[in-house]
Amino acid sequence: MPSSATPHELSSIRMRGFAARASLDETWAWIDTRIQPLASETVEPFAAVGRITAGDIVATGDLPVLDRAARDGYALRAADSVGASDYNPIPLGLMEALSPVSAGDAVPEGADAVVAVEHTRCDTGTVELVAAVAEGEGIERRGDDIAAGTIPLPVRRLVRPADAALLTALGVADIPVVRRPVVRLVAVGSELEPSTDLDTPMLAALVARDGGIAERHPPLPDDAAAIREFLARPGADLVILCGGSGLGTNDLTAEALAGAGTLAIHGIALRPADSISLGDAAGVPVAVLPGSPAACLSAYETVAGRAVRRLAGGSPDFPFVCRALTTARKIVSPGGWADFCRVRITADGRVEPLGSGGNASLSSVVRADGFVLVPAEQEGFPAGSAVPVHLFAPSWKD
Amino acid sequence: MPSSATPHELSSIRMRGFAARASLDETWAWIDTRIQPLASETVEPFAAVGRITAGDIVATGDLPVLDRAARDGYALRAADSVGASDYNPIPLGLMEALSPVSAGDAVPEGADAVVAVEHTRCDTGTVELVAAVAEGEGIERRGDDIAAGTIPLPVRRLVRPADAALLTALGVADIPVVRRPVVRLVAVGSELEPSTDLDTPMLAALVARDGGIAERHPPLPDDAAAIREFLARPGADLVILCGGSGLGTNDLTAEALAGAGTLAIHGIALRPADSISLGDAAGVPVAVLPGSPAACLSAYETVAGRAVRRLAGGSPDFPFVCRALTTARKIVSPGGWADFCRVRITADGRVEPLGSGGNASLSSVVRADGFVLVPAEQEGFPAGSAVPVHLFAPSWKD
Repeated sequence: MPSSATPHELSSIRMRGFAARASLDETWAWIDTRIQPLASETVEPFAAVGRITAGDIVATGDLPVLDRAARDGYALRAADSVGASDYNPIPLGLMEALSPVSAGDAVPEGADAVVAVEHTRCDTGTVELVAAVAEGEGIERRGDDIAAGTIPLPVRRLVRPADAALLTALGVADIPVVRRPVVRLVAVGSELEPSTDLDTPMLAALVARDGGIAERHPPLPDDAAAIREFLARPGADLVILCGGSGLGTNDLTAEALAGAGTLAIHGIALRPADSISLGDAAGVPVAVLPGSPAACLSAYETVAGRAVRRLAGGSPDFPFVCRALTTARKIVSPGGWADFCRVRITADGRVEPLGSGGNASLSSVVRADGFVLVPAEQEGFPAGSAVPVHLFAPSWKD
Repeated sequence: MPSSATPHELSSIRMRGFAARASLDETWAWIDTRIQPLASETVEPFAAVGRITAGDIVATGDLPVLDRAARDGYALRAADSVGASDYNPIPLGLMEALSPVSAGDAVPEGADAVVAVEHTRCDTGTVELVAAVAEGEGIERRGDDIAAGTIPLPVRRLVRPADAALLTALGVADIPVVRRPVVRLVAVGSELEPSTDLDTPMLAALVARDGGIAERHPPLPDDAAAIREFLARPGADLVILCGGSGLGTNDLTAEALAGAGTLAIHGIALRPADSISLGDAAGVPVAVLPGSPAACLSAYETVAGRAVRRLAGGSPDFPFVCRALTTARKIVSPGGWADFCRVRITADGRVEPLGSGGNASLSSVVRADGFVLVPAEQEGFPAGSAVPVHLFAPSWKD
């Protein structure tokens, strides 16, 4: 992994080139080592939906809390039903402990079974039982569903709506979940105004998808002191700066990061988005992404999003459905660089590249159905290859 | 498909049985015929993220709006670079129209190419060009990305964050999207209080997932007049009532729906959740779901969610990743009933059933990784079968 650069070394790098780009694998390893899930906070069960549990959730009571009818019907004593059949219907009115019940009702005193409505008939005006029931039939016993002391939800579990219903039914009020990371977003560029900053509103939507809370700020000028001041502000769990990441004369962001803290990675062997930097300032991880929206998106999806997902406690892997599809045309990629290759699914279900390499147009991202991440050790794929395609929108929404 | 029932017919059905259950296919056909995507409304590009377009979006201008540098480097006249090489470096200072540019900058007057920083060197203190460039190289021309009049986003497209960035860059301010349906949710049951109603908070999360706006109400009593009054209130696009759907003496919801409007489907050949009803009241589609949370969830996922997704303009199909997995044990299901069979993925990647049939415990839903929808025409699956499993949580979040 490249060692940290000083501001002096960096200013001599601008308008020359990146000294030593990190590989994508090195970059992911840096993120996974540097960034751990945030501490837990407790929330109500339904507020926990979509969050990740920060500990095992233990059932404090039984569910159901009492014996209850499992079906709509009649609660009775099983012994009274012996011999009932289509040929020997027994009028229900003759039975003791008889009571009509709805599913979920407490089983009345004296009854030990619930017969379903379907096993009765009332052709003659009185309701008759046409089948015998065994003791316990149609009854759900206390603790059958969940017994006190068991763990319905383990640690690091995504809480689903039905989970919240179960926890509420169990009376578990405080659910420990991983705190949602505050992700501070800012674009860098003297030419930018809030209305022309496309990166931070785009990233805000992606941060929310990945479990973070986006905190957008107005654009910063190309001014190293202003960027350093921004990086010194407390309160964020991750800072993402978009723009000024490259090698131009106005590209001061990586240099400012080195000045405000530590620049751990400067440049990644990834196309587009080779100008990504990562580091630390004020004790918080910082990602510098390219300002061009298409490269910014590639950089977020391949690198920065992983940091957000790590903080939020979820899996750091790509949050996309991945399918193996066949290439309709070859995918060309230079060896030595990982390639975020946008692909389109053809009418016959194969994939064709829309763009790869250093220049990414926003339209190639918009027209794409997904992407293939071409590994650095591979110079693309020939036509007819099976490639793993990460789908931007699951097929059920297309 | 079963014909509509009158309230009189229904009250005679209670405590007897459902007259004729609709199949799941008939139910889906009713939903797809009765329910169409809502009308469009226009929103700003970033407010459109996650919504479905209600028309083709046409580019009103070119993107880029002018010729611009595609890379960080130096803008120059290509003719001045002829002959440059490692062995014949040409000092950049000698060239006309030379200007350092960052990717995205306008190409300065007189320049017709942009040479990348990497094709220069400055070992000697002056910057030198070490490769020739062709005219147009390193320049992105006006309209290269999107030309005015083309359609970057077609109708019925899920709007993604990068789409919003593109539309903003194009200056398209008003994006027509399908209006989000207001889904009115209420539990029915005299025994319920807001704090013990598990169904509507659970459904609210699922409605949001499916593109709707959940509108929760306090529980209604088991009172047909109160339910009819509720169904007469205007302002919803879909009403979902949870509870009182069955055959017990207090189960008045379907009867109230028939009184307030039309009961089109009363009972479905689906387990659990066979007591689902569908119909219309006050011009709005209405779904009656069972009140038991596990059955309510099954009913929403198999039936009511489809109505929400139809209204919201998305695909009505299950919003789950579906994978073909092998059964570790046989799945038992009665013929003639579709079965929402909860399954768990075993350590070796196969699936085993956690529950099927009429009784659904909430814990079986919580412990499940997904479900297999066993078709009515099939009596389950033997061990070793490949079955389509709909996954509740995509694997990247587990």
